[in-house]
Amino acid sequence: MTKTYKIALLPGDGIGPEVLQAGVECLSALKGDFKFEFTSFDWSSTNYKKRGYYMPPDGIAQLKTYDAIYFGAVGHQEVPDHISLWGLILPIRKELVQWVNVRPVQILPGTQSPLRGVEKIDWVIIRENSEGEYAGQGGRSHVGTPYEVGTELAIFTRVAIERLMRFAFDTARARDKRLCMVTKSNAQRYGMVLWDEVANLVAKEYPDVKMEKMLVDAMTVRMVNNPDSLSTIVATNLHADILSDLAAALGGSIGIAPSANLNPERDFPSMFEPIHGSAFDLVGKGVANPIGAIWSAVEMLNFLGETKAGDVLMKAMVKVSGDGVRTRDLGGQANTKDVVDAIVKEIGQ
Amino acid sequence: MTKTYKIALLPGDGIGPEVLQAGVECLSALKGDFKFEFTSFDWSSTNYKKRGYYMPPDGIAQLKTYDAIYFGAVGHQEVPDHISLWGLILPIRKELVQWVNVRPVQILPGTQSPLRGVEKIDWVIIRENSEGEYAGQGGRSHVGTPYEVGTELAIFTRVAIERLMRFAFDTARARDKRLCMVTKSNAQRYGMVLWDEVANLVAKEYPDVKMEKMLVDAMTVRMVNNPDSLSTIVATNLHADILSDLAAALGGSIGIAPSANLNPERDFPSMFEPIHGSAFDLVGKGVANPIGAIWSAVEMLNFLGETKAGDVLMKAMVKVSGDGVRTRDLGGQANTKDVVDAIVKEIGQ
Ligand SMILES: CC(C)[C@H](C(=O)O)[C@@H](O)C(=O)O
Ligand SMILES: CC(C)[C@H](C(=O)O)[C@@H](O)C(=O)O
Repeated sequence: MTKTYKIALLPGDGIGPEVLQAGVECLSALKGDFKFEFTSFDWSSTNYKKRGYYMPPDGIAQLKTYDAIYFGAVGHQEVPDHISLWGLILPIRKELVQWVNVRPVQILPGTQSPLRGVEKIDWVIIRENSEGEYAGQGGRSHVGTPYEVGTELAIFTRVAIERLMRFAFDTARARDKRLCMVTKSNAQRYGMVLWDEVANLVAKEYPDVKMEKMLVDAMTVRMVNNPDSLSTIVATNLHADILSDLAAALGGSIGIAPSANLNPERDFPSMFEPIHGSAFDLVGKGVANPIGAIWSAVEMLNFLGETKAGDVLMKAMVKVSGDGVRTRDLGGQANTKDVVDAIVKEIGQ
Repeated sequence: MTKTYKIALLPGDGIGPEVLQAGVECLSALKGDFKFEFTSFDWSSTNYKKRGYYMPPDGIAQLKTYDAIYFGAVGHQEVPDHISLWGLILPIRKELVQWVNVRPVQILPGTQSPLRGVEKIDWVIIRENSEGEYAGQGGRSHVGTPYEVGTELAIFTRVAIERLMRFAFDTARARDKRLCMVTKSNAQRYGMVLWDEVANLVAKEYPDVKMEKMLVDAMTVRMVNNPDSLSTIVATNLHADILSDLAAALGGSIGIAPSANLNPERDFPSMFEPIHGSAFDLVGKGVANPIGAIWSAVEMLNFLGETKAGDVLMKAMVKVSGDGVRTRDLGGQANTKDVVDAIVKEIGQ
């Protein structure tokens, strides 16, 4: 019996459509007891400028009928970023309760770290994806006056920290049992101290996993100076946002880094997206790096349970990168299409 | 007429006393129409454990009678960080209205960046030092229950952003007229958007300075991939905390990075401190890198108006580093004392 996966495509802005197309071609080339039914949604900034909204009022309800969401990029120079993000990606993460964002970072064969002498990086960054600094609360008073005050309220709940920590410890246990927990509880004495406390409690359930605590500022130094000493990393929404971009850069290119916004309970569809943005300077040139999107498709396959296909796609991607079929951000000459063609060919072998 | 500067020494914890001693020796070797009167305060974590407090109740009042504060490090494995920091360094920054923290980062001669092919970094990071994520507000409700909530409230005021931006634009103007303004106003729609608005307003007063806006996550990528494209950087208390540690690592070592907590109105003394911490693993071995503390002394001299002496000390420090008298964190063999002796000798020439 053939399984059919209904995938919602949200190509979005900039190079989003180009890299998503690349991912769809690779997914379509895979063979197995499954097929994909892709439905594309035109919820872009260009359409926002015409219509005044990203998603229609029943947007989230529509997405709920899919097995997974495959996302390109959002962000456009003519729409303030906080409008575009709170119009599309952030409500999806929140309303579909995708409470954890998983970001693997590796130096692919043929890709070089910008760090001298560093040949290997193998990290998984576990990001809190439902609250913290992205809770969306805050406000402005005395607007426009000299004494105006603006606030941003970060919210940390025991429930959200606890489920996140269990996810992080499970991930670390399935890897090499090292977990680095990031915080800024020296300067922030309330929600961040709760974070530490819950981490310490959950740690007791995993005596086989070695948990270390790092402050977020010192963590950047360690990532640069001692990448090997790190493996699985867990951090708040904002800290992990920053650390995962840094990690991608240290791994060789932001263009290859994938991310998975998961609803681990599977009550709602999860969302898979490259971490690079719209990159308008590359649009239409056919040179965008599709690896971030393709690797995100691998994460999608694995989460759907199609780990054999996920493996085939990952191996093809790694092989092609090692063979030197690489886009310019990786020091190569290939176009987006060259990379996709090579991967599709590799899958066919 | 000889000017006398009264300097309050706060050696603090870990290697703090060792590096501060090194700085004092260098300062004492300088010749000019000035002298220093050093007074040391025993406000360390060790004493906190004995007495139950860092500063006595009139601690801030005592500090106000000095011309400058020279700080080592605070932080001890046996005292929760949020106790030690809110017991000592954070109240000093706040109550003495040291609203800007200036952090220059350069690759010193003889020091290597961990980044392949990068020979030059020349950044000044301007950090908001009075509010934002370090405002100290927040709380915990339903403590210990499964539905506990902890918050951290970041506060941004027009007054504080405006004075900070002017300081940043002035700094950029005195350098090469490039200012990179960092924000996370895509995810944070209130205080961070106010930050953007005020930056844009102040920018109009400085048409000769080219201001760019970067998101904090993308900023880490740019620092790694294109360090030359950056010069003066302005960011929030937390963002700059993170970026300045990363910057120091990319510049070759966290052990060399200085910082100046300034009260630009000179109503209260300013404070100068290396950005490295207590580093208990190095204590008592005589191997701590004194450069961060000595460079902080240079910043202190310059702020006191003794720019000629500041120049002499900076040149001696750079010369000695180029000559290869370097501690282990920089790949050298020297002890703290070797570095200090070489600098003192160089000053005498
Ligand atoms: C686009 C933006 C909201 C997003 C974030 O900050 O989460 C991006 O930077 C990411 O890392 O996925
Ligand atoms: C010690 C700590 C409070 C401090 C900070 O976070 O400001 C340190 O990291 C720094 O950068 O000066």
